Amino acid sequence: MINAYAASEPKGKLEPFAYDPGELKPDEVEIDVHSCGICHSDISVIDNEWGNARYPVVPGHEVVGSVAKTGNNVRHLTVGQAVGLGWHAGYCNDCAPCHAGDHNLCANSQATIIGHHGGFADKVRAAVNSVIPIPDGIDLASAGPLFCGGITVFNPLVQFDVKPTDKVAVIGIGGLGHLALKFLNAWGCEVTAFTSSADKRKAALDLGAHHTLDSRDGAAIEAAAGRFDLVVSTVNVKLDWNLYLGTLKPRGRLHFVGATLDPLDIGVFPLIMGQRSVSGSPVGSPATIARMLDFAVRHKIAPVVETFSFDDINAAIDRLRSGKAHYRIVLSR
Amino acid sequence: MINAYAASEPKGKLEPFAYDPGELKPDEVEIDVHSCGICHSDISVIDNEWGNARYPVVPGHEVVGSVAKTGNNVRHLTVGQAVGLGWHAGYCNDCAPCHAGDHNLCANSQATIIGHHGGFADKVRAAVNSVIPIPDGIDLASAGPLFCGGITVFNPLVQFDVKPTDKVAVIGIGGLGHLALKFLNAWGCEVTAFTSSADKRKAALDLGAHHTLDSRDGAAIEAAAGRFDLVVSTVNVKLDWNLYLGTLKPRGRLHFVGATLDPLDIGVFPLIMGQRSVSGSPVGSPATIARMLDFAVRHKIAPVVETFSFDDINAAIDRLRSGKAHYRIVLSR
Repeated sequence: MINAYAASEPKGKLEPFAYDPGELKPDEVEIDVHSCGICHSDISVIDNEWGNARYPVVPGHEVVGSVAKTGNNVRHLTVGQAVGLGWHAGYCNDCAPCHAGDHNLCANSQATIIGHHGGFADKVRAAVNSVIPIPDGIDLASAGPLFCGGITVFNPLVQFDVKPTDKVAVIGIGGLGHLALKFLNAWGCEVTAFTSSADKRKAALDLGAHHTLDSRDGAAIEAAAGRFDLVVSTVNVKLDWNLYLGTLKPRGRLHFVGATLDPLDIGVFPLIMGQRSVSGSPVGSPATIARMLDFAVRHKIAPVVETFSFDDINAAIDRLRSGKAHYRIVLSR
Repeated sequence: MINAYAASEPKGKLEPFAYDPGELKPDEVEIDVHSCGICHSDISVIDNEWGNARYPVVPGHEVVGSVAKTGNNVRHLTVGQAVGLGWHAGYCNDCAPCHAGDHNLCANSQATIIGHHGGFADKVRAAVNSVIPIPDGIDLASAGPLFCGGITVFNPLVQFDVKPTDKVAVIGIGGLGHLALKFLNAWGCEVTAFTSSADKRKAALDLGAHHTLDSRDGAAIEAAAGRFDLVVSTVNVKLDWNLYLGTLKPRGRLHFVGATLDPLDIGVFPLIMGQRSVSGSPVGSPATIARMLDFAVRHKIAPVVETFSFDDINAAIDRLRSGKAHYRIVLSR
């Protein structure tokens, strides 16, 4: 049996929930969960915000642990090895994106916490190619958030060939945004954080921003016209996107990793006149996650976390709901 | 004196208008105009649709002619040489985009027909680096539309590194769209035209499309989900952009070269889940125009035009306004 925590209805509290995972499949790995980050998407699924939750929901998709058991076909992972598991617990492996190494874009991928039991548990299972070895040099206690929040902001740097000479701004300095500042600084870019208070300004500079801009000061944002090669939005609220579009250089990109539900209302003229792009991306592929971990070791990049015991799981979730966590919460044994 | 045709007020008829261009500047070229395409942007400026017209407006920015005179600093063009002139009649040459070869993105460029007298005239002047030599093998009588309509649809193939293995769809088979079909076919792509009638279907196939899709059949467009690497919109009306976004593969791009005035109302989720982009671009740089002409010679690509005499200039403009031109109108001596 696996001892997990599950919500049995939308917005429900998490309660102990034991389930029998059945026989381990040849291509599966069972992981002993040592710690697990909490992500806004866990709350979205607990609350059935996207309409696709399947109860009981066992959340948890920023897993750090060690290999407990391997299926018969698993050759490159060994019992006891440190591994991580993120948003995806499996891929179809047969579609064009999977064949191209873009497993994260597989339309038939298996989400770790939708129709599958996640990492708020003593153990979790996943398909072998979604289980990523963690190299030496990663701090295991804080590493969980790299597997969803971290890869979500690291992935665009790879996908869109961001250059160390680029000037990049980040909207939203929270769970995702604080890691974006760290990665972009290490990537060699000039990094600007959009922040809404003096406290956050200081924190953003400490995290790796070279400059800050007051996100409540429309005139200051207008004055930054044509300044950035890339603006990454990590927020899930509606902002004046045309204002931010104006801060892009010609050829610039406004990129969304935060899922705002309102349509974007983007004007076509600023896109055309400046050859600008608006885009989005989800988490990264297994190969890109491995690349991120290698980069994080070299540049000593770790999430800034608050740690809660698994026993305090509902308090941890309330803390995340409050929006006050700095910057990511990790559940630990 | 230069003998031109000008509109003296918004939506005004074109009347003969003579002006003294003054002394030829060292970096200028004077062109004997042999023919000149008419573009929807000429009408937009005649009508002051964008609010930046300066009357009298001498339209005409798809010029084919020969070098009449060269300024003292001009070394690489010789009198009598065949040349073309498009949307831009000059660039600042000092900004970052100009330095990078992206003159078409120069914020201080000189539009040929805004605050400058264009090609509906016996002669037109322009800065030397906006005057593009026309190679042997281009049919001069029909070449005019390459210099705005043509480069506008050719440019994204270069800018976004479109591959011959890509599947590309074109929305709007008119002045721009018919050239997009020809270029994309020669580029090696699988080409689909969105068309709204059986007549247009046949024409699109003749122009180089391999497939057509009925743009009035929402179910057919939905059934084409995940089919295209690139969808290029040449229209200036509002369509259901989220429907077209759905026809993109993961990593696909919905690209605008037609300037619809309504905001795009794009949903963020389809961008994020499929790592999709929405973008726009204007005309191309001098270097890209030269590259287009070279490609057009090799692949025998010429605009399909209806030819009017300069004496019938107002009839020609009425014909363009009717939306019935196949596919582009050229004024000729």
